[in-house]
Amino acid sequence: MRNIGVILAGGTGTRMGGALPKQLLEVAGRPILAYSVRTFDSCPRISEILLVMAPGYVPAAEELARPYPKVTKIIEGGATRSESTVRALAELAAEPDDGVVLFHDAARPFVDHDIIGRCLTALTSHDAVAVGMPVTDTIVHVGPDEQVTEMPPRADLRRFQTPQGFRLGTIRKAYELALADPAFTATDDCGVVHRYLPDVAIPVVAGSEHNLKVTHPFDITIAEALHGGLD
Amino acid sequence: MRNIGVILAGGTGTRMGGALPKQLLEVAGRPILAYSVRTFDSCPRISEILLVMAPGYVPAAEELARPYPKVTKIIEGGATRSESTVRALAELAAEPDDGVVLFHDAARPFVDHDIIGRCLTALTSHDAVAVGMPVTDTIVHVGPDEQVTEMPPRADLRRFQTPQGFRLGTIRKAYELALADPAFTATDDCGVVHRYLPDVAIPVVAGSEHNLKVTHPFDITIAEALHGGLD
Repeated sequence: MRNIGVILAGGTGTRMGGALPKQLLEVAGRPILAYSVRTFDSCPRISEILLVMAPGYVPAAEELARPYPKVTKIIEGGATRSESTVRALAELAAEPDDGVVLFHDAARPFVDHDIIGRCLTALTSHDAVAVGMPVTDTIVHVGPDEQVTEMPPRADLRRFQTPQGFRLGTIRKAYELALADPAFTATDDCGVVHRYLPDVAIPVVAGSEHNLKVTHPFDITIAEALHGGLD
Repeated sequence: MRNIGVILAGGTGTRMGGALPKQLLEVAGRPILAYSVRTFDSCPRISEILLVMAPGYVPAAEELARPYPKVTKIIEGGATRSESTVRALAELAAEPDDGVVLFHDAARPFVDHDIIGRCLTALTSHDAVAVGMPVTDTIVHVGPDEQVTEMPPRADLRRFQTPQGFRLGTIRKAYELALADPAFTATDDCGVVHRYLPDVAIPVVAGSEHNLKVTHPFDITIAEALHGGLD
């Protein structure tokens, strides 16, 4: 069985305020992107890595990926997360439907082998898998007037991390339906499967507190502190 | 108008692994609790502070509160968040129904005057207010089998911080109804109002990325790093 890691580094996010896309900013002296590439590369159960890069940064990614032999393809991403997934699926067109693909967000540098392993194990008996954590804050639904409309019990909620994993046949079918739907709006890949293939069960396996997402400038400080504790 | 700050430090949480309740652990050389006490005390619009302390730690709180003249009452909390609120309301029995109370979680040291101000302003035209932030992660509902049941649009979700604020008459009435309900289970104060007084609008005002909650040991590291950036 071939298990393919797709690392999504296609964003050109401006929230960090810098000139570089956030996945190329450094944490403890190395680009954020390099952490997850290294982790997927060193994971024995991963066969191959496809890197989806921000437009214009493919040469930078080739340089960064040189020490990691499983990175066999580097392509440019699209304007949205969904478009990047579509481009990755096109690149993987020769793979069989029962192959496994894990989509990982490059902005989460501290994914680990245990998380990847839980995803791959779930995919031996399911067609999709998500990584989630308990929710410690109260999460509410609000209406357009910014007033509370619903307060679901916290115990029933999970916050997603990545990877999100799929049998290739399942994610291909979901996007085929989505792209034929004029009302489709870009969302994450599990959202596409949940909406267009509602009968596909999506089990949620445990992530890690360390598997945080770097979104705001202060997250770099957090990641630096966390990196100190991990190494 | 009297605006009373209730700082809830009644927890004896064991998740931090230490001997002290987490709100007495130190960040940058001062107990976590001292930060929010100082902020409420120095806020011109706050009239008085009631401190709800973990059982056995009232003397420690008296020592800690000495420099802060608005702390006029220190009481022991109950076994749950809701019980602590009930005890606080009993302590405030002499206050008029149109008085304002803000409940703040002592585990959030970096609340600021702007957040408190937004709550108090909302309470000039509403009977309840919450502090919330946009949700950056995908949040899903799961069933008992840990499989995804619902994926609400992220734009419709907010994660609560504290304070939560109320007209005293409103929160009193909500708890009166809750305590008469054999099916009542402890939840946060907005949850009690939302369930038992569903016609009371709860607007959500903006919090701050800095207003984080210290829950896990690593959060102390984050708070230390954040404190360095704030001072």
